[in-house]
Amino acid sequence: MRCFFRVGDLVTRDLTEVHDLTDEIINYVAESRIKNGHVLIQPMHTTVGIWLNEGEPRLVRDFKKGVDERVPFEGNYFHDDIDKRLDCPPDEPINCHAHLKSAFLSNPSLSLVVFGGKLQLGRYQRILFGEFDGPCPRKHKTRRKWIISIIGA
Amino acid sequence: MRCFFRVGDLVTRDLTEVHDLTDEIINYVAESRIKNGHVLIQPMHTTVGIWLNEGEPRLVRDFKKGVDERVPFEGNYFHDDIDKRLDCPPDEPINCHAHLKSAFLSNPSLSLVVFGGKLQLGRYQRILFGEFDGPCPRKHKTRRKWIISIIGA
Amino acid sequence: MRCFFRVGDLVTRDLTEVHDLTDEIINYVAESRIKNGHVLIQPMHTTVGIWLNEGEPRLVRDFKKGVDERVPFEGNYFHDDIDKRLDCPPDEPINCHAHLKSAFLSNPSLSLVVFGGKLQLGRYQRILFGEFDGPCPRKHKTRRKWIISIIGA
Repeated sequence: MRCFFRVGDLVTRDLTEVHDLTDEIINYVAESRIKNGHVLIQPMHTTVGIWLNEGEPRLVRDFKKGVDERVPFEGNYFHDDIDKRLDCPPDEPINCHAHLKSAFLSNPSLSLVVFGGKLQLGRYQRILFGEFDGPCPRKHKTRRKWIISIIGA
Repeated sequence: MRCFFRVGDLVTRDLTEVHDLTDEIINYVAESRIKNGHVLIQPMHTTVGIWLNEGEPRLVRDFKKGVDERVPFEGNYFHDDIDKRLDCPPDEPINCHAHLKSAFLSNPSLSLVVFGGKLQLGRYQRILFGEFDGPCPRKHKTRRKWIISIIGA
Repeated sequence: MRCFFRVGDLVTRDLTEVHDLTDEIINYVAESRIKNGHVLIQPMHTTVGIWLNEGEPRLVRDFKKGVDERVPFEGNYFHDDIDKRLDCPPDEPINCHAHLKSAFLSNPSLSLVVFGGKLQLGRYQRILFGEFDGPCPRKHKTRRKWIISIIGA
């Protein structure tokens, strides 16, 4: 049995963003030399998500609009009543919307098949990383981390 | 370590459909002779999805109605403004709704446990394949592909 | 290749509940002595779900409120028209809302990376089990089962 592990990262600049990780993942599968097995991609944050879908640029705009429409930025959220929380400073930016987007509209991790040394993807399938809580006014960008593990033979 | 891989397919005839793959998957687990491991089922399209839930016929109607209610067929979608896209002919049927259903309401792949040579499922759990973009008026049916990979010992 | 399998359970008392399984899962990963591999956690019911997100108590209230708001308890559901079903007694409690919550808003199973003998989790990531169909008036509590399988080396 063989195991392969890497850490990936990316930088986001907008509140809601979609990044295509497909080419990076395909390269890691090749580097792993694993012929048959399972790829597991896991974002390391609670206000992001991952999808397997088409990456057509206008569709990506629909994804971003779609998540923002389905979970309002402000929504009388318990988590955003910062004064009532014991775990954060008073200038903590609100981000409950991003946690709900991650939990309700996206996936916590993504498992894909490797067969014959190749990542198995349908013609239009792309691996899309979703940012739902991009930089607050205090910052200009956010660094996001994800990991990939491939096990197989 | 053992690996098992197969390609499955099915034909859909309506815009929104649900197909039960459970019996097929159970047979593949038996054929694989893998005693302990992980099953990974991956649909190969971006306008379909997969669930693990009950297959009671009236509940299946609720699933179909539920996805259609939550994402309207027409919705001022960027992806459906076919003229503005460089990647498709002018008579391309609109299907943004189906991409959003796949991404927001369903799962990109399904991982399940094999233990003691048996696929582990709760009493009511069934593997349900969701079609969200069945044949456009030009066609009468659509062929959909999925793959299964089992790794273990 | 090594395999590790355990059955977990928990008791719920409210209609909608969230339980944090993280510490239990971390202990199982240690017990498994698997250094590199994949953890798969699978709830065994069709009216529950699993998330990977933050466990801050007020955010958990937002998750519970969020699922209840998105899928109404009563909704003219086919599945809840008990008289028309052949598979259940007339006093069967209605629970279509819980099936839809499970399918549309949560995940059927959760796959996570083990590397260097440790479950890989981001700083705020917690494994959250969601109950969407807690005890009906006839009962005071419900026992829920989940399984964990770890494969690797």
